[in-house]
Amino acid sequence: MEMASEIKNEGVFFRNWGWFKALSGKLGAKIVETTRKIKKLGQDDPRRIIHSLKFGLALTLVSLIYYFEPLYKGFGNSAMWAILTVIVVFEFSVGATLGRGLNRGLATLVAGALGFGAHYLASLAGEKGEPILLGLSVFLLAGVVTFVRFFPQLKARYDYGLLIFMLTFCLVSISGYREDEILEMAHQRISTILIGSSTSVFICLFVFPVWAGDDLHNLVASNLEKLGSFLEGFGVEYFKIPGDGKLESNNTFMDDYKSVLNSKQSEECLANFARWEPCHGQFRFRHPWKQYLKIGSLTRQCAYRIESLNGYINSEIQIPAEFRSKIQEACTNMSLESGKALKELASAIKAMTPPSSVTPHITKSKDAANNLKSLLRSGFCKEIDLLEVIPTVTVASLLVDVVSCTEKIAESINELASLAHFQSVEPIVEAEKPKLLHQETIPPCCGVNEPHHVITIDQLSPKLP
Amino acid sequence: MEMASEIKNEGVFFRNWGWFKALSGKLGAKIVETTRKIKKLGQDDPRRIIHSLKFGLALTLVSLIYYFEPLYKGFGNSAMWAILTVIVVFEFSVGATLGRGLNRGLATLVAGALGFGAHYLASLAGEKGEPILLGLSVFLLAGVVTFVRFFPQLKARYDYGLLIFMLTFCLVSISGYREDEILEMAHQRISTILIGSSTSVFICLFVFPVWAGDDLHNLVASNLEKLGSFLEGFGVEYFKIPGDGKLESNNTFMDDYKSVLNSKQSEECLANFARWEPCHGQFRFRHPWKQYLKIGSLTRQCAYRIESLNGYINSEIQIPAEFRSKIQEACTNMSLESGKALKELASAIKAMTPPSSVTPHITKSKDAANNLKSLLRSGFCKEIDLLEVIPTVTVASLLVDVVSCTEKIAESINELASLAHFQSVEPIVEAEKPKLLHQETIPPCCGVNEPHHVITIDQLSPKLP
Repeated sequence: MEMASEIKNEGVFFRNWGWFKALSGKLGAKIVETTRKIKKLGQDDPRRIIHSLKFGLALTLVSLIYYFEPLYKGFGNSAMWAILTVIVVFEFSVGATLGRGLNRGLATLVAGALGFGAHYLASLAGEKGEPILLGLSVFLLAGVVTFVRFFPQLKARYDYGLLIFMLTFCLVSISGYREDEILEMAHQRISTILIGSSTSVFICLFVFPVWAGDDLHNLVASNLEKLGSFLEGFGVEYFKIPGDGKLESNNTFMDDYKSVLNSKQSEECLANFARWEPCHGQFRFRHPWKQYLKIGSLTRQCAYRIESLNGYINSEIQIPAEFRSKIQEACTNMSLESGKALKELASAIKAMTPPSSVTPHITKSKDAANNLKSLLRSGFCKEIDLLEVIPTVTVASLLVDVVSCTEKIAESINELASLAHFQSVEPIVEAEKPKLLHQETIPPCCGVNEPHHVITIDQLSPKLP
Repeated sequence: MEMASEIKNEGVFFRNWGWFKALSGKLGAKIVETTRKIKKLGQDDPRRIIHSLKFGLALTLVSLIYYFEPLYKGFGNSAMWAILTVIVVFEFSVGATLGRGLNRGLATLVAGALGFGAHYLASLAGEKGEPILLGLSVFLLAGVVTFVRFFPQLKARYDYGLLIFMLTFCLVSISGYREDEILEMAHQRISTILIGSSTSVFICLFVFPVWAGDDLHNLVASNLEKLGSFLEGFGVEYFKIPGDGKLESNNTFMDDYKSVLNSKQSEECLANFARWEPCHGQFRFRHPWKQYLKIGSLTRQCAYRIESLNGYINSEIQIPAEFRSKIQEACTNMSLESGKALKELASAIKAMTPPSSVTPHITKSKDAANNLKSLLRSGFCKEIDLLEVIPTVTVASLLVDVVSCTEKIAESINELASLAHFQSVEPIVEAEKPKLLHQETIPPCCGVNEPHHVITIDQLSPKLP
């Protein structure tokens, strides 16, 4: 009996042990996976870690109000508004933080004054009329402001301010119904909000600042670079002979362009934040941020063509050898030269110089397009089967589109260069191009043998006014 | 002297009058323009006006706490948390409001308990150690939570909760440093937050509710419809003979598809909100919202091809008459039939029926693609100049792409239909198709002469479990 129960117990134990082992195994795998994700998040953009520390610092600093007897006595319960302000105002970039801080400050002031006025007017209406009048004014104001928040332009820049406007108006006009220390309260609250906002803005601005303007500038440049990388690799990739494994492992970078397709919203966000930012680094006050949106939109136009092109890579249809040999050079050149042009444009944006070095590439890509046209006009293709060459003809036609897209992008970047007064470097000293994406996977440019003098962006910047 | 001064005065008066007239003219124009914008905003989506009224109502209701003596005595100063909660929780759609309300409620509870624990533990450390321990815990928690907010999945669903978590933890743990009525305060605050959240959720849910799920459902369907409209019109528009003005004024609807290109973010937002929503109308709990994102992504794939196609409309290159006459039918059919297929798919989604009626259109579009292929294989094009036909060949090739995109979209909608258990209508009684966009501009479908019995979606819904 005892033995049977022992065996049974052991069975239960082993079953539980197995279950426990399976569970801990799963848990372990989950923990490893999460750790990997956390590490990647930090490695992808180390500024995230710095931001988290900055946020902790700002919050701890503001909470000092509670520990300093004299400060706490002055503010009392209102001290919590400083904490609340830091939590809602402190954002990743300087522009976002400044925007929120200004929105919050201004909205609080204006709505506070309005609320006080409403409270005073309502108090004239007697004890019965007061709640009715106040209720009506809250209803009307909330309705109107909520509707106004639907305007896209206002929503983009002042949404937070409108929210705080409603909040403060309600709190001041209604809570004033009970207390007559409304002015005292307003004074305390405004001071604490100022403390919270200024702490946030100060830390955001002076401790490893993250500029939305820089991010937008770099985003637009790196989007162009991604398209350039695709185009530089496309010719080789499309015309490669299947089975020739030499190039097959190298084309992962060719999917990078996909992120460009959906970049509109982040560009618009960054541009909105950037408008709040003061001059910094090479960016002056009133830098033409809108022009970046224009460039971004043209870049996406080009990306849509590239998305169509991408469908033709690795297609199983064999290109007739004769047709391939005739058309390959023109297509590869169009693709390669517009790719180089886009990369040059990206470099010019990054270095903030006029994109003068791009003209030869654009000329070459247009020449290649013209070559293609005269080749086709020469009638060599009378003997070939149209069905077999359709994909290649489509690719060629899309590439011609891409060439004209590239030209438009170059024009808009020239516009940016003149709007933002990009300064060209002295002709003898050529600025070194910033390291391009995946440069190692791309064959070296032909004929670029001029000596390169190393000039970093930092060295260039003092020349800019 | 007097006369001169009079003349001078008159001159000043007239100048000022002119200035005043110019100013008031400008102001008048501005007012008219703004009024027009406001009217358009309301007309575009009348739910915006209703939402504004609902918001005003919720806020007025909650501010009643201040006017009812017994309620106000119970809550005191904490009553303002009810107002704050309504302002930050009340959103346009039920899903967004529920998500925010749940985030706020849960985060407040958990962080309140944690904050209380931190406060208690710190108080054991003595008067000197307490502020240091509390400051450290605030710094650590704020840093970790801020970093966690960078995870895209968490940011999409729990961003607001994480914010409130930090806020509540700080307020409870630090303010507790001074007061020992922490539990009393917590009780008041939680009750008022509950009042605010439940008022918001109640009004949002029962007064003209706006469902994010419905919006997502309709957005995906209308995006398909827009692409369908373009494709239905494209064949006619592309092959029209220049100068034949008959069709020129009708093609404004062909730009509608452009909004599809950048629809990713709004679809993802709506899907996130929709997941918070309870079952409503024809949508059951755990409706496969993720599948809509898949359909949306395929729709955008198709839209990118259409964007490339759009570049060929109104191109100045003349298509050779012989080539046009041969290729026109196949291309027009591909475009028309895939357009019809997309519109049928949109109707099927809207009516929540399996898209069985779409198969013939897809078959026809594939037949047209095959016709094109055999036409090209027949070698009729030996005598033509390849250069002249390149644009048309590209259009044909892109249309073949569109046909295969359409097929993929149909597959994914079939998947949706089985995941969401769409019920087919009895075969004899055919569901009337919902009114399609710009139907009047499109020639009537050939061969659709079956009798239509009018069945509205409302009549269909009771059949669904």
